[in-house]
Amino acid sequence: MTDVRAADDRAAVIEAGALAAVERLLAAGTPYSGLSMQRIADEAGVARSTLYLYFREKNALLIRLSSGLKDGSYQLMSSWSPDGPDALDRLSDTIRDVIAYYRRRRHLLRATLESADRDPEMGRIWADELDPFQELCRHWIRTAQAQGRTAADVDPVTASQVIVIGGFRVIAQQAVAGDPDRDATVAHELAANQWYGAFRRPA
Amino acid sequence: MTDVRAADDRAAVIEAGALAAVERLLAAGTPYSGLSMQRIADEAGVARSTLYLYFREKNALLIRLSSGLKDGSYQLMSSWSPDGPDALDRLSDTIRDVIAYYRRRRHLLRATLESADRDPEMGRIWADELDPFQELCRHWIRTAQAQGRTAADVDPVTASQVIVIGGFRVIAQQAVAGDPDRDATVAHELAANQWYGAFRRPA
Repeated sequence: MTDVRAADDRAAVIEAGALAAVERLLAAGTPYSGLSMQRIADEAGVARSTLYLYFREKNALLIRLSSGLKDGSYQLMSSWSPDGPDALDRLSDTIRDVIAYYRRRRHLLRATLESADRDPEMGRIWADELDPFQELCRHWIRTAQAQGRTAADVDPVTASQVIVIGGFRVIAQQAVAGDPDRDATVAHELAANQWYGAFRRPA
Repeated sequence: MTDVRAADDRAAVIEAGALAAVERLLAAGTPYSGLSMQRIADEAGVARSTLYLYFREKNALLIRLSSGLKDGSYQLMSSWSPDGPDALDRLSDTIRDVIAYYRRRRHLLRATLESADRDPEMGRIWADELDPFQELCRHWIRTAQAQGRTAADVDPVTASQVIVIGGFRVIAQQAVAGDPDRDATVAHELAANQWYGAFRRPA
């Protein structure tokens, strides 16, 4: 039992070390396309053969990292509620926080987007990662429709596709390349666009 | 004089042939990252040294092709007018046409997006290509504000950034990976989102 736990601990330490190594290398400016398993193993301080025991290829590391990336922004978005008199201002604040969150991790975000556009498997995984956001958005729209707060002819599924895919790109571009002084302005316009475009569309 | 014209003609033929060769190779499923100048020269039926006289590297070919790509969709978008009682339906039709336009050129669009995410110079060029769309969008919003048709507090510059960057991504994803039977539905939701979100936002 103790041996199993020790092996588990060792696995957890090596995995976490390898993931942190990729983050450090990207943050230092290494392009994702220029990263090799040898370079990652060196940075993590393990043998390349050891690294291969835990990750079959470098995309497996990026997939783990980008999954964690989404968890953080999902937590931020799901803390917002479309009810309450200041819901639009709160949405604006939440989106600003999401932009700031991604900016702190922009090297990882850039690597993920690059890989998703190049590699069909990674593209599918990244698209799946957006599903929970679309589910959340559908719930907000259906609730608003049940309460008579938005137009009955908003299609919750398609509107959520438009909001999440389009909104995510605006957020990503601002986080990766935008002036931080404009974060609040961009967040406010994106929030208002989604609010009047879908959550409170006139009948 | 005749010699100069003949040389110009020859240059035009070689350039057009090389551009068409890249389009054919991408359409046949060759990933952009797997294209070499030699492969392009072979497909175009010219010597590699000749190809280098006209294009210094393969990105130069993609830049020329992606510029033409935008021209076609700009022509479609600029034919829309936000005035008239059926402007929202017309916007929806126009976006559907833009999706169909990009779907016919999806291999080129995919290569362009892949390159823009990987290569900072290509990323900047592609961002610049979106400028005319943002300019058009700012004009529509300012006109609507002058006519009292949308909220005075819409920020035309930021709203156009949100609409063009987000909207383009929704269109691109639908064109590259979406079911054509859903084009009209996606176009309608995107149009309504932009219409009520910015062009006719309640005061």
